[in-house]
Amino acid sequence: MAPIEPGRISSRRAYSGRVISLDVDTVRFPDGNTGELEMVRHPGASAIVPFLSDPGGADPQLLLLKQYRYAAEQVLWEVPAGRLDAGETPLECAKRELLEETGCRAERMEHLFTMYTTPGFTDEKIHLFMAVGLATGEASREADEFIELETVPLSRALDMIEEGTIQDAKTALAILYAAGFRAAR
Amino acid sequence: MAPIEPGRISSRRAYSGRVISLDVDTVRFPDGNTGELEMVRHPGASAIVPFLSDPGGADPQLLLLKQYRYAAEQVLWEVPAGRLDAGETPLECAKRELLEETGCRAERMEHLFTMYTTPGFTDEKIHLFMAVGLATGEASREADEFIELETVPLSRALDMIEEGTIQDAKTALAILYAAGFRAAR
Repeated sequence: MAPIEPGRISSRRAYSGRVISLDVDTVRFPDGNTGELEMVRHPGASAIVPFLSDPGGADPQLLLLKQYRYAAEQVLWEVPAGRLDAGETPLECAKRELLEETGCRAERMEHLFTMYTTPGFTDEKIHLFMAVGLATGEASREADEFIELETVPLSRALDMIEEGTIQDAKTALAILYAAGFRAAR
Repeated sequence: MAPIEPGRISSRRAYSGRVISLDVDTVRFPDGNTGELEMVRHPGASAIVPFLSDPGGADPQLLLLKQYRYAAEQVLWEVPAGRLDAGETPLECAKRELLEETGCRAERMEHLFTMYTTPGFTDEKIHLFMAVGLATGEASREADEFIELETVPLSRALDMIEEGTIQDAKTALAILYAAGFRAAR
């Protein structure tokens, strides 16, 4: 008997939107049984930890965003991030989003990690980068982005993760990766 | 003039499902302008890092899951997790999910962190816990959960985060919190 290949049997688009779409898919599971799953389809995104000073130096400075998030009904601390345009690579997206949200270009971008945000109901992946050697360009935000830029030392950013001031998963993970983890007292 | 209170003006349910719902909301932004946002409504979830041995001991053992995820088209390494039932607290949910997915009860549960998974399009929050002093009960998985349990030393779990073997955001963050971060060589 051939091994069971889990995956999509059929798909029904329940909602098609500006940023996301929602499919109700009939799926074959690894045991051969079938079921329905709700799946938010997302093009993926890139997020960037922008270093304003040498990341190998003593307590380097980061550029973080304070962004109003309707979903959270509050302002969240975040790293610059945004979704991939059609045909765009994660690195191209990271460069574009860094420029749009902070007005900066980076001398060097380093891929840190790619994460599934919440694989129970979406295929969204976020590609995390760090940006080094920043030069100022011109920010050009989208109309529904409400962002303030803040310079934060890495040590403070790590404290903000530990104490829960940073609540956004990609931001916490991206900073921890860029720092090579740390703390553990 | 009264300050502008950002938030919902009106909401249209575009999809109502088993696990998630999708609203298209008209929103007032902090600058007073209005726009439409697609918002996946989720009841929230709890995730648990189960310690099989003293978390203060040398290289304690964790219980991790290998779970087939249709969204990722692969098996992902994860910590036990699941969504909140109606009226359930995050702690109650954590205890129930730990029992259902691993068959274990914990002597002690400690809240680590609460994260927004991806606040650009969903209000989902995951409450991260660590579980200590495990006693075996009986697992009772849902029909669409395909899970294998694996015992992994904490040091190996941290390596798996560093090398990208662990790709799930809540899992990486939960283990890093439970370990109090680390690495930084």
